[in-house]
Amino acid sequence: MNYPVIVDVTLRQGIADPEGATIERALPALGFTGVTHMRAGKSFRMDIEAPDEASALEKATALAERLLSNPVIENATARSGTKG
Amino acid sequence: MNYPVIVDVTLRQGIADPEGATIERALPALGFTGVTHMRAGKSFRMDIEAPDEASALEKATALAERLLSNPVIENATARSGTKG
Repeated sequence: MNYPVIVDVTLRQGIADPEGATIERALPALGFTGVTHMRAGKSFRMDIEAPDEASALEKATALAERLLSNPVIENATARSGTKG
Repeated sequence: MNYPVIVDVTLRQGIADPEGATIERALPALGFTGVTHMRAGKSFRMDIEAPDEASALEKATALAERLLSNPVIENATARSGTKG
C-alpha cells in the first residue's frame, strides 16, 4: 500500500538562519509585529509503498538522512501526511 | 502570550516541481524504491504574540500570504506548532 509521508527538515538549534532572520526583520515594515524566533525550513511530501505505516515512516527517515538533509546542520523528522 | 506557529508552503497542484522530480529520480540509485509523488516545499516556524491561539493562526495566515508565499503558484497553511 502507498502511505503519504511528510518529511520536515529544520536547521539545528544554534545554526545561523539568515533566511529566517531576514524575514523577521522585514515583518514590522509590513505591519506585522510580535513575531519572533522565525526559522526557515524545508518540507517534502511523498507517497511511500510499504506493508504498513511504521515501515513507511522508517523508510522516509532513512531517505531523509541520506538525501533530503545535511545531518551536520539539519534535523529531519518524518510524519504521516494526509493525502491531498 | 506567545504561540508557536508553523506555516507550510507547498506548490499548488499542477505546478511543475523540478526539485521534487529530481529527488524522485535520484532515489532508485540510492536503493530507495516505491517512492512516488515527491513534492518539495518550505516551512517556517515562528512565535507569534497574540491574545489567543486562533488570532495567532490568523496573523500567521495573513503574513504567509503577504510575505512567505507566492499565492499564484503556492498554497500556505498555518498550524499550531509545539515549542522546540
